[in-house]
Order: sequence, then structure tokens, then C-alpha cells
Amino acid sequence: MYGAGDVRVENVPDPAIVEPTDAVIRVVRACICGSDLWPYNSMARSDTGQSTGHEAIGLVEEVGADVRTVKRGDVVVMPFAISDGTCEFCHEGLQTACVHVAFFGNSGMNGAQAEALRIPYADGTLYPVAVGEDDALMPSLLTLSDVMGTGHHAAVVAKVAPGKRVAVVGDGAVGLCGVIAAKRLGAEQIIVLGRHPDRIALAREFGATDVVSERGAEAVERVKELTGGHGVHSVLECVGLDQAVQTAIEITRPGRAVGRVGVPQHQAIPDAMPSFFGNITIGGGPAPVRAYIEELLPDVLDGHIQPGRVFDRTVGLDGVPDGYRAMNDRESIKVMVKP
Amino acid sequence: MYGAGDVRVENVPDPAIVEPTDAVIRVVRACICGSDLWPYNSMARSDTGQSTGHEAIGLVEEVGADVRTVKRGDVVVMPFAISDGTCEFCHEGLQTACVHVAFFGNSGMNGAQAEALRIPYADGTLYPVAVGEDDALMPSLLTLSDVMGTGHHAAVVAKVAPGKRVAVVGDGAVGLCGVIAAKRLGAEQIIVLGRHPDRIALAREFGATDVVSERGAEAVERVKELTGGHGVHSVLECVGLDQAVQTAIEITRPGRAVGRVGVPQHQAIPDAMPSFFGNITIGGGPAPVRAYIEELLPDVLDGHIQPGRVFDRTVGLDGVPDGYRAMNDRESIKVMVKP
Repeated sequence: MYGAGDVRVENVPDPAIVEPTDAVIRVVRACICGSDLWPYNSMARSDTGQSTGHEAIGLVEEVGADVRTVKRGDVVVMPFAISDGTCEFCHEGLQTACVHVAFFGNSGMNGAQAEALRIPYADGTLYPVAVGEDDALMPSLLTLSDVMGTGHHAAVVAKVAPGKRVAVVGDGAVGLCGVIAAKRLGAEQIIVLGRHPDRIALAREFGATDVVSERGAEAVERVKELTGGHGVHSVLECVGLDQAVQTAIEITRPGRAVGRVGVPQHQAIPDAMPSFFGNITIGGGPAPVRAYIEELLPDVLDGHIQPGRVFDRTVGLDGVPDGYRAMNDRESIKVMVKP
Repeated sequence: MYGAGDVRVENVPDPAIVEPTDAVIRVVRACICGSDLWPYNSMARSDTGQSTGHEAIGLVEEVGADVRTVKRGDVVVMPFAISDGTCEFCHEGLQTACVHVAFFGNSGMNGAQAEALRIPYADGTLYPVAVGEDDALMPSLLTLSDVMGTGHHAAVVAKVAPGKRVAVVGDGAVGLCGVIAAKRLGAEQIIVLGRHPDRIALAREFGATDVVSERGAEAVERVKELTGGHGVHSVLECVGLDQAVQTAIEITRPGRAVGRVGVPQHQAIPDAMPSFFGNITIGGGPAPVRAYIEELLPDVLDGHIQPGRVFDRTVGLDGVPDGYRAMNDRESIKVMVKP
């Protein structure tokens, strides 16, 4: 990506092992993320460009001398952030705060919308899965590298629990995975705030019980009507815009929680006073998806959850620029890339 | 209070039972709160004035026909907010979200810096204690109506636990009670951010292990030095100003929590992005002190905690205006009122 709207497919040197803790993977599947659309719409022109993409399933092609837990030929989930697997934060299960954290396809890091890429701290970062590279579950496994783990994180932070009322702000792929996560954790009512018919239809299949297509104050009023007047116990904020966060806070029942996973597009969290007087907790951030794979993988493997259904288009590398356009135009929910 | 800096002592009609769920108490002890200093510094001129004060120990003088759990002659703690004791929020232990909540000494409600006042929903609001009205524990019992419960709330929301590192932002009475609460909940390191020698000295007696008198970026740096580089597990934000909240967020270890109990003096919570990328949880609000009395009272009665030591001056009603001045000038930590 060389600037807003300017995505190019180019030949670059093959990745190679640099550190003994590295691996090189061939990308089996990658995809385009809703968060990729922020730079797609706003990136300043760059002469050097930024390699893009942070979600992938890979086939390990080569490992450095110190790599122990993955080996050549393994199929692996590549979480969107690298983590060394050994620091105190990794031990606490918050790999996105690893002392060596870096995000693929960001700040000069190589991206996964590519044929291959180098993986630093391969042991701590990659998660091997015992499937073939053409397994029918590939789309759902791919979501474990970001959107399914991210939706789950929002639900965990928002303290979704059996019998509770939940709202999901945003009907993108993360919001849809948030619906799956809320359902999986036992929510009784799941209200999705969104307005795209295709996404709403899928949200209902995933377990959404109510849809609110209004915005702002009208959305708040509608959610209160649907919840006996006091709002929901848990809100999954999956957008990141100021108005979405404000709505999230205003539909939260006093004493309950917002889990925000939409990358913030603002400097300050709105509603400092309403959230205070409501004793509302606001948490969340980049999901430690590496930690969540263990919990979510069995449900993916046995088909209990099918987050891969968020993909409604598959392209080759040459189709990536048009894939960005399609997601940006809301023609597609989420685009898979099969290099 | 008729405006900023304008506190007057006046004769008003005696309070009387209005609803059958009311009680009337004679005020045995009241006090001035740090939060009273916000209007003391900024209240717009008013012709009618606002009766002030929201913390008291009272002696029940009269009860309405439907009052069941308190009776004439009881000594009672009066939490700063009224609560009906029967709604779903009261049952959940969040009395400050009661469907009938109102705050004493605010928005036209009568205040406790007075000889007597009417207590709506007496059963749900008042907490009887088996002591005489001149008990030596009176100052500590009085803190259960606000500051001790509020400091405890900050600690609970910030998830203070045995062995953890804690910071308390603010060295006012609530911050000092936050130190007590953190110590009581087993914190291993307690860093107080403040710069008033008398308060700092008391904080150390209450269990503070470190003091940071810097502000802003320097304070953040200093706390990081004291905590191995990553900040504290729990921050008790006891100020409410933008810079204090920002500092609170920036000294929180990734994945951990801020409990804010300082009444916000800003529209938006700063540091939306740092708190997001650090997966920092921000919670808190008006403390359900009514719920906490049960937990804290035994420790007050047996002297295990002595929050009443935050009072360093006692005045009669005539001394209330000068009490405001003394607290505002930082001559006094907290002023007790003995009508």
C-alpha cells in the first residue's frame, strides 16, 4: 500500500531466516481485515510503501536453529501480532503486550497478503494445527488469526455470561464473530447494531436475537426498549469510531461492561461522566488471539462454531486491490486471499 | 451554598416526615468532602442556594409508618446517596444505580451539613450501628458514609489483590482511604501520587510504600522505575481531573485496571489509544457505599482500619464556611462537622 486507495501487487525478495528463532511460512490463506480499511482510506502517500495483511494460515517452509515447537511442513495459524512466548506478559496470556510485540503489516513489518513471510519468534507466535492445507475448515481456522479471537476478546472483556443480555456494535466480520462468541458464552439476548442486510442475515444465523439499525440517540432508545429500560449487561464495541463507542457506553446497563476491540479512531473516550455515573467498565484492546486459539480451536474443529462463514469472496494475490475496494464499498463482508 | 466561595449558615424549617418510607435524623457528625470543593470553586450564583453535605452519622428521631429496619434512637450511617433497597440494582449491590437514587446535598436534595435532615427510603438508605453517639469510633464510622467506601470501591474496581502493585492517584481523604483499602486487600506495593507533606505522612502510616510527588510524564516515568518498568496492576484514581486520569492510565501495567472514583471534571476520558493498546480496563463511579458497610464495619469496630484519622479538624455548624476554606487552601485534609 502506497497511500489511500493505492494497493499494488509487486515482486519483492523472498523472505529468509534472519534470527535463529525465525521461521519462514508459505501463505496458504490470508485475508483483508476491516482494520486494513483505515489506512486504505487515510494513509499518507509513501515512496517505500507498507506491506499489508496480518491474518494467515501458513505452511512452515523453514525454521531457524533455535525453533522448537514448529517444524517444516506444519500447518500453522499466524496471529496478527508476534510474541516471544517467554516474557511475563506471554505467560499471563496477554501476548499482544509481549515485550517483543509487533504487528504484521504495520510499521515496516512484513505483511501476510503475500506468497510467503518471515515470522520472528516462531515458537511464541505460530500455533500448529493438525489439518491439511486444503481442509474444508481453512476459512474458520483463518479467523483464529484475528477476527474470531478478537470477537471473543470483546465478549470476555465485556463479561458475557450465561443468561445475560448482550449488544454487538458493528456488523463487520469482528462484530459477526462477536455474535458467535456471545452465543457460545451463553448470552440469552444478543442485539446487533448494524444496517447491512447481508451481514444482519448472517448475524441472525450466528445467534443474534434482535437487530437495531438506528444510530445515535435513536439506537440507544431502541436498545433500552428491547431490554426493559436499563440496557444490556455486555457491549461488544467492534467499530472504533467515536459515535460507536458513545452508543456502546449509553446502552450499557449500570454496573456492567463494554469490551472495545474496534481500533480507536479518536483521542479520547467519549461520555466520561455518563460512564462514571453508571459505574460502567470500559476495557479491551488488541486481542491476545494466540492465547484464545486453545479454547476456540476445538469448537472450530468439531463445527460447533463456523466463523469462516464471514468470508464471502476469495481472491488470488492479483485480486487483493479489488478485494480492498469491495470491502470498502461494503460489497463484501470479508475477503479471503488464496495466493 | 449560594455560589463559588459563598457558604452561609442559615435557619431553615425543620425537616419532617413526608412519605411513609421517610425517616428524620438528627445529625451527630457530618463532614466536608473533597467533591464539595468543585462547586465551592465553580458554582454559578444562585438565589435559592443549595443545601450542602452528603456524609453523616445520624440519630433517628422519627420514622414514617412503613419504615421497618430502623427505629427512633438508632445511630445510623447515612450513605451519600439514597437507595430504595428493593430495586434490581439494590439487590445487585449497586445502590448508587438505584432506580430512586438521589444524592444528598445535590440538585435540590437536602444536605447533611445541618442539624437534621429528612431521609427518603430510610430502610434502604440507612445502616444502623450499635454504638453510642459519642463513641470514640465516630470519625471512622463517619467515613463509611463516603470516603472509606469510595476508596474501597476504587480498589475493588481496580482489582487489587494480594501481592499486587498498586498506585493511588491523589492524596486527599479518598486517596488516603484508597491506601487503607489497598493495604487491607493485600497489596504488596502501594505508591501514592501526591505532594502534601501532611497527607503523605498519613499515607505512609496507612501503608503506602512509595511516594511520587512528580506530575505528568515525570510521574509516569518515576512509577515505571519503581515497578520494574511496566507500571502497577491497579490504579486508584481519586482526583477526577484530566491529567490525573491520563497519568492513571499511563502508569497501569498492560492488561490491568484503573478504578476511578474522582468525580470527572472532563467530558471525555483521555488516552483512548494508549489504554486500548495496553488492554487497560477503566471502571468505577459513585461507590455503592451502602453495600460495602457490611464488609468494612467489622474492621472499623475492631480498629483494624482507622480511616477516621483523615479528619484533622472539627468545627461546629458555624465553622463550616471556614472549614471549606481550610480544605480548599489545603490547610486541612478533611473537616468534621459536629452540629
